[in-house]
Amino acid sequence: MKICIVGLGLLGGSFALGLRQQRTDLHFIGVDKNFAHAQRALELGLVDATADLYDGVTEADLTVLAVPVDAILGLLPQVMDWLPPHAVLTDLGSTKQAICQLADQHPKRPQYVALHPISGTENSGPEAAFAELMPGKIMIFCDVEKSQPAAVQLLEGLCTQLGMRLRYLSSPDHDRHLAYVSHLSHVLSYALSLTVLDKEDDEKNILDMAGSGFASTVRLAKSAPEMWVPIFDQNRDNLSVALGSYIQKLQQYKDVIDQRDTKTSHELIARANDIRRVLAGIEKRATKH
Amino acid sequence: MKICIVGLGLLGGSFALGLRQQRTDLHFIGVDKNFAHAQRALELGLVDATADLYDGVTEADLTVLAVPVDAILGLLPQVMDWLPPHAVLTDLGSTKQAICQLADQHPKRPQYVALHPISGTENSGPEAAFAELMPGKIMIFCDVEKSQPAAVQLLEGLCTQLGMRLRYLSSPDHDRHLAYVSHLSHVLSYALSLTVLDKEDDEKNILDMAGSGFASTVRLAKSAPEMWVPIFDQNRDNLSVALGSYIQKLQQYKDVIDQRDTKTSHELIARANDIRRVLAGIEKRATKH
Repeated sequence: MKICIVGLGLLGGSFALGLRQQRTDLHFIGVDKNFAHAQRALELGLVDATADLYDGVTEADLTVLAVPVDAILGLLPQVMDWLPPHAVLTDLGSTKQAICQLADQHPKRPQYVALHPISGTENSGPEAAFAELMPGKIMIFCDVEKSQPAAVQLLEGLCTQLGMRLRYLSSPDHDRHLAYVSHLSHVLSYALSLTVLDKEDDEKNILDMAGSGFASTVRLAKSAPEMWVPIFDQNRDNLSVALGSYIQKLQQYKDVIDQRDTKTSHELIARANDIRRVLAGIEKRATKH
Repeated sequence: MKICIVGLGLLGGSFALGLRQQRTDLHFIGVDKNFAHAQRALELGLVDATADLYDGVTEADLTVLAVPVDAILGLLPQVMDWLPPHAVLTDLGSTKQAICQLADQHPKRPQYVALHPISGTENSGPEAAFAELMPGKIMIFCDVEKSQPAAVQLLEGLCTQLGMRLRYLSSPDHDRHLAYVSHLSHVLSYALSLTVLDKEDDEKNILDMAGSGFASTVRLAKSAPEMWVPIFDQNRDNLSVALGSYIQKLQQYKDVIDQRDTKTSHELIARANDIRRVLAGIEKRATKH
């Protein structure tokens, strides 16, 4: 089987590397508008060959769009036009509703399967890719009832071989859930970074005192704008609601601190500690592989 | 030298374990009002013996208060009264101004040295202690001009043997800086946990979709209320200012998203990415040991 990966960064590269460890019968064609990235991906063994978009899509049995979500929207109609009758198309974008709505308008919609792997790091580019990124993680399949069963099965098979756990959601549910459990985390991490960097302008050595707790909450602020600006924009309605709830929670906690209401402060933290069971689940998935 | 550790949890236990790896001539006496913790600390080899507070303090050359910051305020006057003339007292509390102000009122103030190790995990109790917690991390010394030089030197020596990097601040500067680079991170992590747990009441499986990015930002929400409620309360003035700035940054970002101002969104993230240099410094310190 020939697989064309469009976008040779963290996700596309890791998807290819992970599969190459499991199977030797796959031929990977890499497409990247950044020539240096394409060359580097070839050197690193992420793909077997590089091609331009037309050649890649028309030669492959499966095309995987692993580019930022605004680029997915830009490429999708053209790639679907070029898609051979027997081929399958998927994308790994972090938003799904706008992408699925666009795909729905194309006559080849049944050949498309909407995916989102719950995996990533704050790094990007071909150098950031590694075979262990996806094994053990969740792959969300969206709106599968609109895809050919054979196309869904092909991707279920590949994701299972990759050691991923499959979940099924409608694209609106996906975007609403992800606003809370992923996109919100990124905004609050960026805002934390901006707050302390502003403060650093007045207090030169403040960040010398930062430790692992700060590092943990601010880590996502390393994530690239090219990826996250379009995610926030495509999921703006859900994210706005989630951010509104979060700001309200913070303001409530600030009031509790200002009023020295230590009893309520204790109750809020005791309730927040319940996140331990969620984190235990994430760690269990991560260490299973 | 006899060292009395009051509070046999993560910090007190790790301080003792770390020093025991470097030196064999230290005798550790453990004090904990929780009898089961004291017994467990003895079994785990954190200390050589257990004692009640009076015996521990009066027998030791150095007493280390490693309890929550409200308990430090509660114990400090009594422990200073009992402190032998040759002995040194320190504490490892995460706030310093209120504790130093209280110590300033005692005639034995010169025998006290105010410390704060920038190290920790979200876990607590004697089982959470490990020898590698403090090596490589920063130990902040506060208001050292109010301490006997010999007392400061004793602790500088021990912390250096532990592999820590020493920093010196006034207690007001300490609390102002830590509000931004530690206490704020904890509040925002608790608020994130509360926001998604509330949402989970409506959307049962939402947290199945959480990945490592969410885990990173919410990890500190596992931290115990017994430790953090009094820190927030003692540092409420600085924390309130930091939280106010942070909420303002979030609200600004929410407006940018709502207005679909992707140009400003890109600029904010590009600026936030500058946190990479800070994180590189923290990682460098952590991996040096």
